[in-house]
Amino acid sequence: MRDMTDRPVTLSDVAEAAGVSLSTASKALSGTDRISPKTRQLVRNTALELGFRPNALARSFAQGRSQTIGVLTQRASNVWSRVVLAGTALELGAADQAMLLYDARLNGADMADSVLDLRARRIDGVIVIGVGTSERVLSVSDLFQVPVVHAFMRTENENDVTVTSDDAAIGRVAVTHLIQSGRRRIAHITGSVHDEAANTRALGASEAMAEAGLEWATPVRFDRWSESWGERATTAVLVEVPDVDAIFCGSDAIARGAERALRAAGRRIPDDVALIGVDNWEQLMHEQFSRHLTTVEVGLEQIGRLAARHLIHNDLEPGTHFVAPEVKLGVTT
Amino acid sequence: MRDMTDRPVTLSDVAEAAGVSLSTASKALSGTDRISPKTRQLVRNTALELGFRPNALARSFAQGRSQTIGVLTQRASNVWSRVVLAGTALELGAADQAMLLYDARLNGADMADSVLDLRARRIDGVIVIGVGTSERVLSVSDLFQVPVVHAFMRTENENDVTVTSDDAAIGRVAVTHLIQSGRRRIAHITGSVHDEAANTRALGASEAMAEAGLEWATPVRFDRWSESWGERATTAVLVEVPDVDAIFCGSDAIARGAERALRAAGRRIPDDVALIGVDNWEQLMHEQFSRHLTTVEVGLEQIGRLAARHLIHNDLEPGTHFVAPEVKLGVTT
Repeated sequence: MRDMTDRPVTLSDVAEAAGVSLSTASKALSGTDRISPKTRQLVRNTALELGFRPNALARSFAQGRSQTIGVLTQRASNVWSRVVLAGTALELGAADQAMLLYDARLNGADMADSVLDLRARRIDGVIVIGVGTSERVLSVSDLFQVPVVHAFMRTENENDVTVTSDDAAIGRVAVTHLIQSGRRRIAHITGSVHDEAANTRALGASEAMAEAGLEWATPVRFDRWSESWGERATTAVLVEVPDVDAIFCGSDAIARGAERALRAAGRRIPDDVALIGVDNWEQLMHEQFSRHLTTVEVGLEQIGRLAARHLIHNDLEPGTHFVAPEVKLGVTT
Repeated sequence: MRDMTDRPVTLSDVAEAAGVSLSTASKALSGTDRISPKTRQLVRNTALELGFRPNALARSFAQGRSQTIGVLTQRASNVWSRVVLAGTALELGAADQAMLLYDARLNGADMADSVLDLRARRIDGVIVIGVGTSERVLSVSDLFQVPVVHAFMRTENENDVTVTSDDAAIGRVAVTHLIQSGRRRIAHITGSVHDEAANTRALGASEAMAEAGLEWATPVRFDRWSESWGERATTAVLVEVPDVDAIFCGSDAIARGAERALRAAGRRIPDDVALIGVDNWEQLMHEQFSRHLTTVEVGLEQIGRLAARHLIHNDLEPGTHFVAPEVKLGVTT
């Protein structure tokens, strides 16, 4: 046992008490080398008991690295961005990287401030998290000397390293699912015609229809990402195409409205009319329960995780890297 | 203009180029002192142009402070915890504090590791984010020498500094809203009887009923936080109390199910039966659109923000601090 003087506990004290070499103790605590989990645990518990405090600040200062990643968000409170942000924070934490978040500071003077502040903190890299693929945003890559990865957005610079959702694939997998379920008279209700995400999803879906030798049962209806639009548009579709057998909704909010209109018209889901949305809204909201409607999972948390993982390893080629969407079956009650 | 040698840009260079004193330049960049926004902006823009890099690592090392807060989450991917986490990250970032997130490391050996790793990083404080008030969790305050604030949880130690949702008040404001809208035959459908949040909400609601001289139109129905439970229970309530005029649902998921059962029974909402849920689910999901059902906002982002703000200022008394809930009116379409 060490004597109880005021002398700070050193790594040698820890090694001695744990009965391992100084080099093994160092490796066990730094986590940078291969070492058996049992030994690692022993050394760490010993260090904890003795109150050993390795000084990471001294190490950071010596290495000129902060083990901190700057995260710039367009709007962190956005419902979808929040999920991406959580994925980023989780992955950074798992790699022992801290995250310094600057929200809504991507424009003008605020951006200059952000750049300066992040440089001052000697951040090791930057992740920019957007609010989706509906609009292109300005590129900020050139403002930093450290690696920059963009997540859940499209910038105006095609060479930016970007990890984001694949809208064309979302449209394709949604319609392919309906066709494989035997549906032929398919309608599509979605967001604004000026929204790049809505357009690209519709384009991917139209391609999948064409490849199967099908045409939309009625022209694609573009307007808003809302429940009330889903309800109104579905009511109109039922008038125009009474024997419609499936509706691809551009979002789960639209699908909820469509569901209401179908029930009001006495149509069974999915027996009479199959519905598929986008977002995996219900699982985002109450994951522990069964899904009510079939949907396409966009992969938001995964986008945040991949952006962080690849930034840390700095191993992505310039350009846009898409996360593959996935159909999630609903259990209609 | 400074000469283009390899000499690093100093604060004096910045002060000279901006035409201010060294002291003013220092204050403008540190942000710790009062200075006019215009001067601050001028100095910061000049610093940015010249490529000045103040060394925050050196400052941190000298002060023994890391400007980093450790955040321990029970499960960061939990739908509600994610909103609290975003609030915490936003508030920490606004105060230039980085966040080091360790997820699901609150037990046994993982916890020992977390404590050691956070000590090594010389974190300035700890925020623990739980998964709600349904169950009590073990206290970790004693493991750290730095301030600890708990958010969105209850620990077994009543002296822990905790910021969380106020379930009793949630029940009270929900029922008070229904009573003030003229409702008298009120039912309550909620989560499990073993769930502390469900119980405390029901208790608060029952108190508000009693204060108004009312009794529940039918005994409180406890079971699950799910849509299908909301639908089944509402159908049963309609059989037992055909003239029920309001239902307080313990969550918005339950309210969604209740809505379906009411529509299937041909009841108008809110004309025949008023509904109120809890969570502000819809605004969490698609904030830009009008709310469909009336609900009680729990204040999740605010909980995360307050935990961070008060940790930074270290100004909260030991004990539990509740965030006040708020009724949000729905626009029934």
